[in-house]
Amino acid sequence: MTAKTWEELAAEKRQKLSASIPEEWRIPNELLPPDSQDDIRNFPETSGWFTEEELAITRCTALELLPKLASGELKSETVTRAFCKKAAAAHQLINCLSETCFTRALETAKSLDKHLATTGKPVGPLHGLPVSLKDCFNLKGLDATVGFTSHIGDPAQYDSVLAEMLQAAGAVFYVKTNVPTAMMIAESVNNAFGRTVSPLNRRLTSGGSSGGESALVAFGGSPLGVGTDIGGSLRIPAACTGTFTLRPSFGRFPTLRCRSGMPGQEAIQSVNGPMTRTLADLELWARIVVDARPWRLDPRCLPIPWRAAPLPPRLRVAVLWNDGMVQPTPPVARALRQTAERLRAAGHEVVDWSPEDQPEGYALLGRVFLADGGRAIREQLERTSEPWRPEMRMYEEAREIGALEYWQLHLDRQAYQKRYLDRWLAAGIDAILCPTTPYSSVENGKFKHVGYTGVYNVLDYSCISFPTGITVDKSVDVALGDTYKPLTEEDRQIQAEYNADAVHGMPISLQLVAQRLEEEKCVEMCKEVLRVLS
Amino acid sequence: MTAKTWEELAAEKRQKLSASIPEEWRIPNELLPPDSQDDIRNFPETSGWFTEEELAITRCTALELLPKLASGELKSETVTRAFCKKAAAAHQLINCLSETCFTRALETAKSLDKHLATTGKPVGPLHGLPVSLKDCFNLKGLDATVGFTSHIGDPAQYDSVLAEMLQAAGAVFYVKTNVPTAMMIAESVNNAFGRTVSPLNRRLTSGGSSGGESALVAFGGSPLGVGTDIGGSLRIPAACTGTFTLRPSFGRFPTLRCRSGMPGQEAIQSVNGPMTRTLADLELWARIVVDARPWRLDPRCLPIPWRAAPLPPRLRVAVLWNDGMVQPTPPVARALRQTAERLRAAGHEVVDWSPEDQPEGYALLGRVFLADGGRAIREQLERTSEPWRPEMRMYEEAREIGALEYWQLHLDRQAYQKRYLDRWLAAGIDAILCPTTPYSSVENGKFKHVGYTGVYNVLDYSCISFPTGITVDKSVDVALGDTYKPLTEEDRQIQAEYNADAVHGMPISLQLVAQRLEEEKCVEMCKEVLRVLS
Repeated sequence: MTAKTWEELAAEKRQKLSASIPEEWRIPNELLPPDSQDDIRNFPETSGWFTEEELAITRCTALELLPKLASGELKSETVTRAFCKKAAAAHQLINCLSETCFTRALETAKSLDKHLATTGKPVGPLHGLPVSLKDCFNLKGLDATVGFTSHIGDPAQYDSVLAEMLQAAGAVFYVKTNVPTAMMIAESVNNAFGRTVSPLNRRLTSGGSSGGESALVAFGGSPLGVGTDIGGSLRIPAACTGTFTLRPSFGRFPTLRCRSGMPGQEAIQSVNGPMTRTLADLELWARIVVDARPWRLDPRCLPIPWRAAPLPPRLRVAVLWNDGMVQPTPPVARALRQTAERLRAAGHEVVDWSPEDQPEGYALLGRVFLADGGRAIREQLERTSEPWRPEMRMYEEAREIGALEYWQLHLDRQAYQKRYLDRWLAAGIDAILCPTTPYSSVENGKFKHVGYTGVYNVLDYSCISFPTGITVDKSVDVALGDTYKPLTEEDRQIQAEYNADAVHGMPISLQLVAQRLEEEKCVEMCKEVLRVLS
Repeated sequence: MTAKTWEELAAEKRQKLSASIPEEWRIPNELLPPDSQDDIRNFPETSGWFTEEELAITRCTALELLPKLASGELKSETVTRAFCKKAAAAHQLINCLSETCFTRALETAKSLDKHLATTGKPVGPLHGLPVSLKDCFNLKGLDATVGFTSHIGDPAQYDSVLAEMLQAAGAVFYVKTNVPTAMMIAESVNNAFGRTVSPLNRRLTSGGSSGGESALVAFGGSPLGVGTDIGGSLRIPAACTGTFTLRPSFGRFPTLRCRSGMPGQEAIQSVNGPMTRTLADLELWARIVVDARPWRLDPRCLPIPWRAAPLPPRLRVAVLWNDGMVQPTPPVARALRQTAERLRAAGHEVVDWSPEDQPEGYALLGRVFLADGGRAIREQLERTSEPWRPEMRMYEEAREIGALEYWQLHLDRQAYQKRYLDRWLAAGIDAILCPTTPYSSVENGKFKHVGYTGVYNVLDYSCISFPTGITVDKSVDVALGDTYKPLTEEDRQIQAEYNADAVHGMPISLQLVAQRLEEEKCVEMCKEVLRVLS
């Protein structure tokens, strides 16, 4: 018996995933939108294939569903079925899933319904709510390939700590979502599952690495998703799809027992966070997780309760107009200007934030990511002779450093963190407002530059990416002309590739950055930003 | 001009240090106790060389001095002079200093006195109090050699963050204290300054690496000292001299801009903590530092205030009788038994804590310390051709690991932390009570085994080392006989070397361990332990 090739493994896995969708949730051929249809958001409403009840349920936010689930007004089984079907549809349209566990989900839902009927009490604050998870969250019995064919058919022996906690709170797991190889590409593409695309426009990327999750949430296939972020992997996909996310500082939410693309790398910590359609759902998730005292389950979590964060009447917000490396594309620049103006008009103080420290932070991110010379990734690829993806050339060509050089990297990062903190306090600011990425969203395969997000991973600051409510208008968001002097070669490329037609109508997101471990304040400030934008 | 040899550098440095003691604070030859006098604690009282006022002042705790300094009842200059003189005496008797800054200290003190006289207000909660610092705390203009001849004559360009904070609170710096080479030996001996010994008995070690500090505090030459701990460096010297210390979890007290023996090593974090003659002084220091919001100055500090920690009426305390590697020597075993009995008699629950996980934690400590193959230390030694100290053979012979192996070490440590936490919570305990070291104290050059402390550095738990009030009694603390079956070869050696005569009368300390970031609870529990022992 010869070992299977990586292509065979991938094909079988995709086939198995596809087959895991029961007949009732397979979109009839005649209803399938043509490949030429870019925007498939309205498919559930227009296809006639969903019942009114299914549509009504899947339109609800988590905050709307939870009281109904807790009171028994809605059965978890009903809600779970509706989201299973919608997630299945999403996968058939935008290739966003990596695993399904529909049977398990319905069994869990039924047992929660029974519990409520018997005891009159919900099991916890997420009673009966379907929650989708990024592929890296281990769930017993399911693969967590993180895009490697080498991990196919190697199901997890245990649940990730966060999954354990969410389940104890009453969550129902039903799908896991696609990621890029090793979760180290800013779009969600890999050799096992292929590419996830945006439901808003299938020619555009849903971002990465939590791009299966963002696509699913944006499609309405999940009321609450969970992703991870080590350089922008929550914020980039949220921004590309107009959804909300919170990148917490390390230690607020548990990360233990997730599969990593670079297991054990701690110089810049990967964190987990919610992906939602509303800020209220984001806050709800954060509060529930912290209230459940994750530090009792994950030894690296911090015993910091979810705290009240009253804001000063007048916020002092620093705007990072560009990061000194890449100018945001015209729609993002416009949304940033408008948001700053609105804040000022509402009585807040708006000052400029110099990009002087951004390039060094970005360079530190790269040094950490490449510290092992790409060995962790290479070892996985070699197990099945899977080829390097072209997006990963920097890992392919990296050189491993030794412990002493690694320690120097820590020292450089510490000094950088100190300088940024001193500047922040000296400026007396409450937040930095900046692009999440240079893009509103961008055509598949064209995403470049994770500098706007990555610097805040190095700093471990609390960040929210939020949709501004402003959308791309090709008539005003015209490309920077030939007179524009690019900041860098990457900037030149990004501006040259900017295609107003391709992103016309897309939502534009921005990033709000608070200090380290100021998650609560970040949420409160984001509420105020949304208020002034509304 | 040829470069100086390490011997020349060391001799000049010692000479300069000695010369920095002004004539008035040099012990007259005729008063110097003979080398044969082991216990020099009573020198200040019996020599007649100290005034009544100097003796009265230096007998006070920090808690007693501070209100008098704040009210002006005592001038900072007077208090500072008294401690300068006593520290100078200590150095001449037990070789505990590495740097002095007496002139700076008196100028600071005078200016604080002036401030109080002018404004009627103290500058902060440490107004006018002399505070001694371990050598590694950078103070502008002073060396921080951490025992390397290569760092001689390379004065710090900046203050360590903790020094900055203490100074802002009103502290007066007057001396820095001796350490072992790279602060990586459990006694305080190096090729630059030689060996610090215990004021309780000069044949015994004051421990390490904060052993200059423990010796000074035990002698009464400092009302408040600050040391550091990466494997026991606060707790071992505190235990060897019968003083108090708190090893905090990382992030409570600022560590930035200290000189390290392994700069940038983060897998097990070095922490700073107080060294005091009373638990009340320890608590005072911790509260003052945390109340000053160190997270605004050190980006790796946690925004966790100093919290109230009410105890349950009945504590559940687990006793680690031995760590599976080394049996505590007879006096320590006796103090542990007595303390456990007293706790039980006072109504607390006392259970056994299995040593099953201790050896793995200790092995992890070693792997981290040796990760760079001793390169950081070797590079310093080579700069002056200084020889390796015999205590450092493990560093001399180590092999450097690469980033990927380093990441594996992190994963092993994470799994270990998780297992220990799960066991702790399953057992429902409030604290572990155990030896701080196998010794009450021990003859110079004979200290072995840092396992009792080091495991809790790997776990990052809150620990206090406290004197039990029980002292060694050679008539009962007899060596384990030939029938004793050693746990390990190291245990055999330690028990064979145990010399009841040598340590007769010495104080016996124990370690109280609380969970990670439970510093406040650890302090409260220690109060209760002292109460039941009193």
